Amino acid sequence: MRPATVPRTGAGTPPGGLADLHAWWRAANYLAVGQIYLMDNPLLDEPLRPEHVKPRLLGHWGTTPGLTFLWAHLNRVIRARDLEVLFVAGPGHGGPAVVATAWLEGTYSQRYPEVSRDRAGMRRLFRQFSFPGGIPSHAAPETPGSIHEGGELGYSLAHAYGAALDNPGLLVACVIGDGEAETGALAASWHANKFLHPVTDGTVLPILHLNGYKIANPTVLARIPERELLALLEGYGHEPFVVDVAADDDPQEVHARTAATMDRILDAIAGIRGRAAAGRSVDRPRWPVLVLHSPKGWTGPATVDGKPVEGTWRSHQVPLSGVRENPEHLALLERWMRSYRPHELFDAEGAPRAALDAFAPGGKRRMSAVPHADGGSLLVPLRLPDTRDQAVAVPAPGRVRASATGVLGTWLREVIRANPDNFRLLGPDEVASNRLQAAFEVTDRQFDGIRLPTDEHQAADGRVLEILSEHLCEGWLEGYLLTGRHGVFTCYEAFVHIVDSMVNQHAKWIKVSRGIAWRRPIASLNVLLTSHVWRQDHNGFSHQDPGFLDHVVNKRSEIVRVYLPPDANTLLATAEGCLRSRDKINVIVAGKQVEHQWLGPEAAAAHVARGAGIWDWASNDAGHEPDVVLACCGDVPTVETLAAVMLLREHLPDVRVRVVNVVDLMCLQDPVEHPHGLAQRAYDALFPPTTPVVFAFHGYPWLVHRLTYRRANHDVLHVRGYREEGTTTTPFDMLMLNDLDRFHLAADVIDRVPGLAVRHAALHQRLLDERLRCRAHTRRTGEDAPDVRGWEWSPA
Amino acid sequence: MRPATVPRTGAGTPPGGLADLHAWWRAANYLAVGQIYLMDNPLLDEPLRPEHVKPRLLGHWGTTPGLTFLWAHLNRVIRARDLEVLFVAGPGHGGPAVVATAWLEGTYSQRYPEVSRDRAGMRRLFRQFSFPGGIPSHAAPETPGSIHEGGELGYSLAHAYGAALDNPGLLVACVIGDGEAETGALAASWHANKFLHPVTDGTVLPILHLNGYKIANPTVLARIPERELLALLEGYGHEPFVVDVAADDDPQEVHARTAATMDRILDAIAGIRGRAAAGRSVDRPRWPVLVLHSPKGWTGPATVDGKPVEGTWRSHQVPLSGVRENPEHLALLERWMRSYRPHELFDAEGAPRAALDAFAPGGKRRMSAVPHADGGSLLVPLRLPDTRDQAVAVPAPGRVRASATGVLGTWLREVIRANPDNFRLLGPDEVASNRLQAAFEVTDRQFDGIRLPTDEHQAADGRVLEILSEHLCEGWLEGYLLTGRHGVFTCYEAFVHIVDSMVNQHAKWIKVSRGIAWRRPIASLNVLLTSHVWRQDHNGFSHQDPGFLDHVVNKRSEIVRVYLPPDANTLLATAEGCLRSRDKINVIVAGKQVEHQWLGPEAAAAHVARGAGIWDWASNDAGHEPDVVLACCGDVPTVETLAAVMLLREHLPDVRVRVVNVVDLMCLQDPVEHPHGLAQRAYDALFPPTTPVVFAFHGYPWLVHRLTYRRANHDVLHVRGYREEGTTTTPFDMLMLNDLDRFHLAADVIDRVPGLAVRHAALHQRLLDERLRCRAHTRRTGEDAPDVRGWEWSPA
Repeated sequence: MRPATVPRTGAGTPPGGLADLHAWWRAANYLAVGQIYLMDNPLLDEPLRPEHVKPRLLGHWGTTPGLTFLWAHLNRVIRARDLEVLFVAGPGHGGPAVVATAWLEGTYSQRYPEVSRDRAGMRRLFRQFSFPGGIPSHAAPETPGSIHEGGELGYSLAHAYGAALDNPGLLVACVIGDGEAETGALAASWHANKFLHPVTDGTVLPILHLNGYKIANPTVLARIPERELLALLEGYGHEPFVVDVAADDDPQEVHARTAATMDRILDAIAGIRGRAAAGRSVDRPRWPVLVLHSPKGWTGPATVDGKPVEGTWRSHQVPLSGVRENPEHLALLERWMRSYRPHELFDAEGAPRAALDAFAPGGKRRMSAVPHADGGSLLVPLRLPDTRDQAVAVPAPGRVRASATGVLGTWLREVIRANPDNFRLLGPDEVASNRLQAAFEVTDRQFDGIRLPTDEHQAADGRVLEILSEHLCEGWLEGYLLTGRHGVFTCYEAFVHIVDSMVNQHAKWIKVSRGIAWRRPIASLNVLLTSHVWRQDHNGFSHQDPGFLDHVVNKRSEIVRVYLPPDANTLLATAEGCLRSRDKINVIVAGKQVEHQWLGPEAAAAHVARGAGIWDWASNDAGHEPDVVLACCGDVPTVETLAAVMLLREHLPDVRVRVVNVVDLMCLQDPVEHPHGLAQRAYDALFPPTTPVVFAFHGYPWLVHRLTYRRANHDVLHVRGYREEGTTTTPFDMLMLNDLDRFHLAADVIDRVPGLAVRHAALHQRLLDERLRCRAHTRRTGEDAPDVRGWEWSPA
Repeated sequence: MRPATVPRTGAGTPPGGLADLHAWWRAANYLAVGQIYLMDNPLLDEPLRPEHVKPRLLGHWGTTPGLTFLWAHLNRVIRARDLEVLFVAGPGHGGPAVVATAWLEGTYSQRYPEVSRDRAGMRRLFRQFSFPGGIPSHAAPETPGSIHEGGELGYSLAHAYGAALDNPGLLVACVIGDGEAETGALAASWHANKFLHPVTDGTVLPILHLNGYKIANPTVLARIPERELLALLEGYGHEPFVVDVAADDDPQEVHARTAATMDRILDAIAGIRGRAAAGRSVDRPRWPVLVLHSPKGWTGPATVDGKPVEGTWRSHQVPLSGVRENPEHLALLERWMRSYRPHELFDAEGAPRAALDAFAPGGKRRMSAVPHADGGSLLVPLRLPDTRDQAVAVPAPGRVRASATGVLGTWLREVIRANPDNFRLLGPDEVASNRLQAAFEVTDRQFDGIRLPTDEHQAADGRVLEILSEHLCEGWLEGYLLTGRHGVFTCYEAFVHIVDSMVNQHAKWIKVSRGIAWRRPIASLNVLLTSHVWRQDHNGFSHQDPGFLDHVVNKRSEIVRVYLPPDANTLLATAEGCLRSRDKINVIVAGKQVEHQWLGPEAAAAHVARGAGIWDWASNDAGHEPDVVLACCGDVPTVETLAAVMLLREHLPDVRVRVVNVVDLMCLQDPVEHPHGLAQRAYDALFPPTTPVVFAFHGYPWLVHRLTYRRANHDVLHVRGYREEGTTTTPFDMLMLNDLDRFHLAADVIDRVPGLAVRHAALHQRLLDERLRCRAHTRRTGEDAPDVRGWEWSPA
């Protein structure tokens, strides 16, 4: 099953070229080892002494020479074919590699002039790596040419495919570590090749880098028979090409073999794209995949202290430890570094020699300088249609009903129409289920698998991407945003936890990027959570979890925004703001069911802009301090709160009730903690410090306490929300299970407002009895009681 | 590449048997449709009327007939070969299927006598499904025979492998939905077949059920050419067998073909196991995998309202909607249900006819009654060695140093030695990195891939399982626990977020299980988080996230426990308690670095039992109310707090300081909220209500506020913790970046204790200047300042 070796036209490179390639690779490796070990004497002008070596040796050597090797070979074909290539380093913990290549190409010194292309700059380059006040040990936002953090593993291939979408001229070379390949996110991402359009999207070249070991264990894919590995890659739909290198192979022979294979791969890609562009292909292309078997820690010390190091897990991090203290290790390090023959590579001033510069591409063709890796530099703002054209007419609060996400879908349809090449809508099989199906009036789901006549809205190209993998949807979108485009990821609320960790990493990326002068802002990550906890009554307990909000608010406040619009028009205003925003993670929670509408478009926009406000039309405290504030945040809690207001109006007309609705959750927090936090006076104007508050919240109630514990009214704040009680039942039964129903909220008011509890004990009991009546009805009929289902807001 | 069709001995079944199988399948399908639609007239004794139909139609028909079909065919081979089979329904949203089969086999009525095997019981069976007060629409803890919640998708295959470990007599038949197969967790789980031992572990038979559609989209694996699909499965290391069914195939022919295939599969499995048991196999077995192509909604309505339903996504949930209101749909439903010929299947009283009972296995051979699916019934407590044998001798606080997890490793080694067949240690390539390597003195990592001489501690069997997939590790352990065994999952703290959602689902499973009379408690899920936020200075920002604690405390308080032992002996005491506990999720955060030791074994055990306590030996408030409480939770914050105590002792000897250390985080919470919450009096005895507290916390500081907002001292509680600031630097610089260092804590005391700020402004400044000194040293040398690195606790 080893691929055939028929030579093709265009392959091959003159021997001189490969000698330069080899020199360039040695230079990159030298610079990588220097970063890990040295804080002085960068060019080895003098014999290495202990004080030249860093006291703490941090970094990952094992994967590094493979990354530099691939970079060098990609450079050759970039030159030969004038390609535009984005390099995604899955094993981004091989940070020394991608920093070394960026310095060698001159990009590093352009981005960071103090890290100049001379001896002083090389010294700084070495010293700063993994050094306090310096740069991280992994590929990171600081790294020119990178869109991909090298810490947590698994997201490289999804990022690569996201970057390739709508970039027809781009080749994304994605190196996948064999450890990384064991992760779930990566394993799922192989099938992304069924979603790429061979004309309007770019190309992804996955490069599976097998070096055999992780930190301590062999890797799975390096320990299966080759026939299984090739079958696996063919099963993923690829045509595999293999380069197999042993530590003692002749470098020139290895380079010649690799160059020939790389040429065959690029010929194959060109053939596929040419046939597709000419309309001559119907079947899904079998895109090439490259497998590189190379020794872990290749070109490093073969043995240390009598133990094999090169080719084993012992070279995963630093193959030589205790170098300052151990003269033998110091000598080994010097021998290792001199094996690259640095004085052939760098001139007397420490600059790379001309042949190296001549070998590498220049300008924006350098992978370290490709504009797509600084997506903000390519960002074109969306053309945003007027939301008023899709707004729901609301003659008076509660008079009409609509599906919030259904309405949003009609606006997103217009967004798609107006932005046909830089906006994507993604979801795990849920775009229609989440009622965004209006999008399909102007586009389709992009899918290049076998399509059948019974399918609907499936096409080889389209603005919607759906696969039942939250990882892949999130990763596609991250890659798309990081390369300067826009999008929305929609997800069932409970299952967005699947990408908790991915969102973490993206938040960290943005946080650091904002501090890097040359990185320009990118479009925000917009996460629309619908099919939310209160309307998963039919799917049951496993589908009920509002905890993503708790998760995301742990990230930096300059990045995180959380919105819970109570109806369709507030959702439209929220979505518009999110699509205009930059460098944020916007989480929007909105229901998809047909529900009460409260605010007309102007009122909605003003409410969203304020973040929270008094709903006068629902309150009866005009001109007075209220006896109680009924606060609500989230669409379903808002309905229950207003129903509770009607109960109070009927039974306790003298109680002065203020209704406060919160759209922008973070406005609850102290402004010291979050930029959206309401100033203390503004907060106290909504929530008088000693007035009891009954707060109906969409999520876990303690999140509100967490956000408000510094507020003056915190001691009188009583929050109802989801208490992790649920099952398959009716919507109103879900509320009762968690004491968030109107009857309980009204009873809470009696409990909280001084003086009411004693006088109105009977009413309190009656309210709770109403719950029993509702529950009994539901158990008997399977439906909510008619008065609950048919409830309508009526003005006072 | 279609597998050969050579008949083998032992295959085939008499035709009579297949007729009974067909009847049994029809019965299961009838019962499934009845559950989705009917609330009365279960046997169709009279023509169907609207009021017989549920008002809300909830459930997933699409996958159901495939599940019942597979169950029926497995029943045949269980009978024929006396197998013990556990059925894992990946598409567990096909709840009607697994409930129907459990009722048909009599198990349901044994578990729930009110759901009897007669007309009344069948009526109740139908009515309760997806009905308020009834049972969920998905496979759930309520479902006899299930260890697998059918809500979130992706974990079936990992659960199946976990169940098979150390169960050599068990065959786990794991049905994987083609939608589910797109998820990351499932995609990663295919490689679990390289970790199974063919003699000491059981067998997993993955069954890939391709029915072509998800909610709205085609599935990827149903839309690739068959040669790719077979290559993929061969690439995973399996031998694929295929059954391909079209809607109009003759049922008898389908059954015969399926039975023959099933026999070939079981012959192959028997052959593999036989050769392995005889020691005649050396290569990793190529275990069979079954691919079942069958129409979605098979045997359901072919077309509805002129649109194709059977075989399309339209049968994903309820193929007929609005049945109460639409007479045509009502008629279609009746015709559909009668197509199964219920009166041939059930007697006049509604009981299954004798032939059906005779067809299915009996007793514990029923998949609905297999004891492994009620793991608690098989649970054997661990033999726990005395922790004192591994404890660190601590002559006085701070006198010795040790690695907490290193010490734990020696105890786990003894646990493994004493429990050779029901305890597993799992981790994503990090067991040694997390310093638990003592385990390898008595066992190895189990791995059946190709092994090389350079490998260490790799063997075909062993108690440790490592793969670089948190999903698979967590899923293996869940499957292992749910089938009645014990284990520990160890993970880098930041990356445990990868399994946030899995842990959620497990917490929900336990919560519901605890309310089910027949389910017996299982061993707790023990998650050891090490390589934690404060000691990921070398790996940088991507590796720094303590937010799993925030995530897990959202789950039900009767299940969640969080421990932050400050040293090795408290870690030992904590771990012992966790391994004795049942039906919990225990999260332990503990460092792996060599650090100060504070408590001897007896003191440690007492401290862990209390959960929190005053450390008199570090306090100077004996006999008085303290001026300030320095509280600490977590190993690194404890060191910083004690260093701050020494600074205060030196500079402000008159300030009365009390040191409170918290091991059991949940003891901070009100006892109304959490069973471990300290009673108000006990809490106030540690933290006097008006005494300022400077709380050094391991995680995000607001988590402490969330837990304590009801406490009397909340207004004087000042918490330091991780504020999402980090990079690659030194350990002490990490603390300074987040204001958790000793100098800042001491300065906080000056800020908080009334009267100190004005009098000691100069000292305050000096303390903050110490930070500048330390930072400058670090930037210069790459190391922490010697006085910080070499700090030692000295008693007053």
